[in-house]
Amino acid sequence: MTVPESPIPTSRYERGLNRLREIDGDAGEAVIASLADIAPDFARYVIEFPFGDIYSRPGLDLKSREIAVVAALTALGNAAPQLKVHIGAALNVGCTREEIVEVIMQMAVYAGFPAALNGLFAARDVFASRDAEPRDTV
Amino acid sequence: MTVPESPIPTSRYERGLNRLREIDGDAGEAVIASLADIAPDFARYVIEFPFGDIYSRPGLDLKSREIAVVAALTALGNAAPQLKVHIGAALNVGCTREEIVEVIMQMAVYAGFPAALNGLFAARDVFASRDAEPRDTV
Amino acid sequence: MTVPESPIPTSRYERGLNRLREIDGDAGEAVIASLADIAPDFARYVIEFPFGDIYSRPGLDLKSREIAVVAALTALGNAAPQLKVHIGAALNVGCTREEIVEVIMQMAVYAGFPAALNGLFAARDVFASRDAEPRDTV
Amino acid sequence: MTVPESPIPTSRYERGLNRLREIDGDAGEAVIASLADIAPDFARYVIEFPFGDIYSRPGLDLKSREIAVVAALTALGNAAPQLKVHIGAALNVGCTREEIVEVIMQMAVYAGFPAALNGLFAARDVFASRDAEPRDTV
Amino acid sequence: MTVPESPIPTSRYERGLNRLREIDGDAGEAVIASLADIAPDFARYVIEFPFGDIYSRPGLDLKSREIAVVAALTALGNAAPQLKVHIGAALNVGCTREEIVEVIMQMAVYAGFPAALNGLFAARDVFASRDAEPRDTV
Amino acid sequence: MTVPESPIPTSRYERGLNRLREIDGDAGEAVIASLADIAPDFARYVIEFPFGDIYSRPGLDLKSREIAVVAALTALGNAAPQLKVHIGAALNVGCTREEIVEVIMQMAVYAGFPAALNGLFAARDVFASRDAEPRDTV
Repeated sequence: MTVPESPIPTSRYERGLNRLREIDGDAGEAVIASLADIAPDFARYVIEFPFGDIYSRPGLDLKSREIAVVAALTALGNAAPQLKVHIGAALNVGCTREEIVEVIMQMAVYAGFPAALNGLFAARDVFASRDAEPRDTV
Repeated sequence: MTVPESPIPTSRYERGLNRLREIDGDAGEAVIASLADIAPDFARYVIEFPFGDIYSRPGLDLKSREIAVVAALTALGNAAPQLKVHIGAALNVGCTREEIVEVIMQMAVYAGFPAALNGLFAARDVFASRDAEPRDTV
Repeated sequence: MTVPESPIPTSRYERGLNRLREIDGDAGEAVIASLADIAPDFARYVIEFPFGDIYSRPGLDLKSREIAVVAALTALGNAAPQLKVHIGAALNVGCTREEIVEVIMQMAVYAGFPAALNGLFAARDVFASRDAEPRDTV
Repeated sequence: MTVPESPIPTSRYERGLNRLREIDGDAGEAVIASLADIAPDFARYVIEFPFGDIYSRPGLDLKSREIAVVAALTALGNAAPQLKVHIGAALNVGCTREEIVEVIMQMAVYAGFPAALNGLFAARDVFASRDAEPRDTV
Repeated sequence: MTVPESPIPTSRYERGLNRLREIDGDAGEAVIASLADIAPDFARYVIEFPFGDIYSRPGLDLKSREIAVVAALTALGNAAPQLKVHIGAALNVGCTREEIVEVIMQMAVYAGFPAALNGLFAARDVFASRDAEPRDTV
Repeated sequence: MTVPESPIPTSRYERGLNRLREIDGDAGEAVIASLADIAPDFARYVIEFPFGDIYSRPGLDLKSREIAVVAALTALGNAAPQLKVHIGAALNVGCTREEIVEVIMQMAVYAGFPAALNGLFAARDVFASRDAEPRDTV
C-alpha cells in the first residue's frame, strides 16, 4: 500500500469542513460558496479558524458553543444573517426551540429589549423555514 | 401564630432575591447595595426582572444561562464589571474554568480578538481572586 | 352597578398595557401581537417591565422619555424597526417633527454621521406614513 | 480704539465657545485644553461643529438636548468620561438629579441592565463631586 | 471687473462640495439630495464638516482616509448603506478592489467574522454595480 | 552543519511570530506572554491567524493595515489596550504621528466625537511613552 491515507482528517481545513457541515449544514456551505467570487481565501479562513480550530476544541460541547453564539449575535444586533445561520446551527446540534427562545429572551437583560425582539423575530423566521421545508437536520 | 409565612417565595422580589444569591453570591448583593444611594428602585428592578422573571424561568438550565451571558458581555466589550460578576456566577452555577475560557475564546470569531483578549484577562482576574480568597461558592 | 370596575389599573400588566397604548398606539400592539407565536411570555414582559414599571414612573415626562429613546436607538444604530416605532411614539406624546429631527441630527456628534443619516431616513419614512395614513395621533 | 468689537458673537467659533461654557462649564474647557498638545485643530472642531452648529440651533431646548446625550452615551456604554461630562452638563442646563437618574434607568430597556448600571454609577460619581466641591454651575 | 472672484473655493461649503464630488461622486450627491425634504441643514453639515473640514485636511492622503472609513464601517457593522458608498469612494480615490477586500477581511480579526462577511458581501454588490454600469469613476 | 535551517519561515506559527515582532514589537510579545497562564492556546491562535495568515498576506501594505486597525478600534471604542498597541504598531510600520492623529480625528465623522476624543487621548499616551522611553522601533 503506497498512499498512507489518514483515516481521520488531519488538516485544519478538512477538520473544519467536516465541523462546518456538522454544525451549519447547508447554510454553512452556502456562506462558503457565496465567498467564491469575492474572497475565496476568506472562505478558507472561515473553515480553518472558526471551524478547524475553535469548534474542534474539546472542553465545551457544541450545544453550549451554539448557545454562546446565539447569545452574542443577538446582543450585538448587527449581524442578522449570521444570527439566523446560528439559530439553525443550534437546532442542528441539539438545542430545542424552547432553549433558543430562552437564550434570546435573556438578552433583553444584557443588551436591551430591541435586541431581544429582533432575535426572536429571527428565530421565528428560522423555525418557520424548518417547518416549511422539513430537513433531516431538524 | 397569625402571620402565614409562605414556605416558598411567592413574590417576584423574593424569588429574584433568592435567585440572585444563588447565582451571583456576594457580588450580586454588592451591586444591589451600591445602588442604594443613587437609584434604590433600580435595585428592586434588577432583582425583580432579570432574577425574579428571567433567571427563574424553566426551559434553560442556569449553566447555559451563564454561558450565554459571559458570551454576550464578552462580545459587547463595554461592561467589564458585569462581565466579571458573571464569570464568577458561571463558576457558581457549575461551569468549569475551562468551559468559561472556551466560551470567551470563541468570541474571537464573533466579536474579534480584542473582545476575546479583554474577556480572557477578566477571567484571569476572577480566577485569581477565587484562588486568593477561597469562598464557599467556588 | 354590579361590575366593580377599578377606576385605576392596579396590576403592572394593566398599567403597562394602558401605557403601551398611550405611547405606541397601534405600533406597540402590533409588536405584542407579533410575539404571540414565538414568545408570548416575552410579550407579557414587554408590557410589564418597560411600560408597567419604567414608563409609568413619575420623575420624567413622557416627551423627555421618548427623546431619550429616539436618541439611544439612533446612536446604537442596530434596531431600525424599534427606532421607527419610537419616532412614532415621540409624535404621539407631543414631540414635534422638528424636535425629533433635532434629536437625531445631534446624534451625528455622539455616534457619527452614518447613525444620524440612518435615523433621519427612518424619521422621513415615519413622517411619510403619517402623512399618507392620517391618524388622530398626528 | 478702532477695531469695532462685535457685541454679539458672529463666528461659529465664538458662538461655540460661549455655548460650550454655558453647557459644560469647566469640564468642557478642560477637554479643550487637554487636546492642545495632541490635536489642537480637533479642539477647534469640537467648539465649532457640536457647539457652534448643533447646540446653537433653535428647535430643541438645551435640557432636551442633554437628555438625548445622556441617553445615547449611557446606551453606547463606551465613552465613560464623556458621559460624566454630560451628566454634569445636564445639571448645568436645568435637569434635576431625579430626571437624569430616570433617563439612565430607562436605558436598561433599550441597551440592557449593565449599560444602565454603569450609567448610574457614573451619575453617582458626578453627584458626589458636586456635593464635595460646590460650584456656581450647579 | 470689480468683483474679485476667487479662483479657488474659499468657503467650507464650496470646498466640501468639491471634495464630496471628488470622493463620493454621484453616491454622495444622492445622499445630500435625499436629505432635502427631511433635514436640509444636515445636508449642509455633511458637506461642511466631514468634507469641508476633515477630508480637506493635509496630513493624510485620500486613499488612506477611505481605507480608514471602510475599516471602521465594516467593524461597526450597523451602517450598510454608508459602507457601500465608501467602498465606492475607496475605488474612486485609487484603492484597488484587492486592497478593499484585504481591509474588510482584516476586520475579521478586530470585529469578528460576521462583520467581515457582511462587509465582503457589501463589496461584492458594489463591484457588481460597477461592472454592470460602467462609470468614468471606476 | 547538518540541520538545514530554513531561510524563510515555513509554518503559520513561525511566520506569524516574525510578523508580530515586526509590527507590534515588545507590546505584542507582552500580550502573548500575558495569556500564558489563562489561555496559552489562544496565544498560539493570535500568532497564527491574525499574524501568520492575515498580516502576512500580500495585497495591502502594512502601513495601510495599521491605519485600518487604528480606525476600527477607535470607532468601536471598547478595546482601549488594543488601540494603544496598534497606535504603537502604526508607528513601527512607518505611519507618522500626524497621520495617526488624522485617522483618529476622522473617526469623529463615522463614530462620533467621544470615540475620536478617547482615541486621541490614547495616542497622546502612546506618543508620551515613546518620548519618555526611546526605543529603536520609533
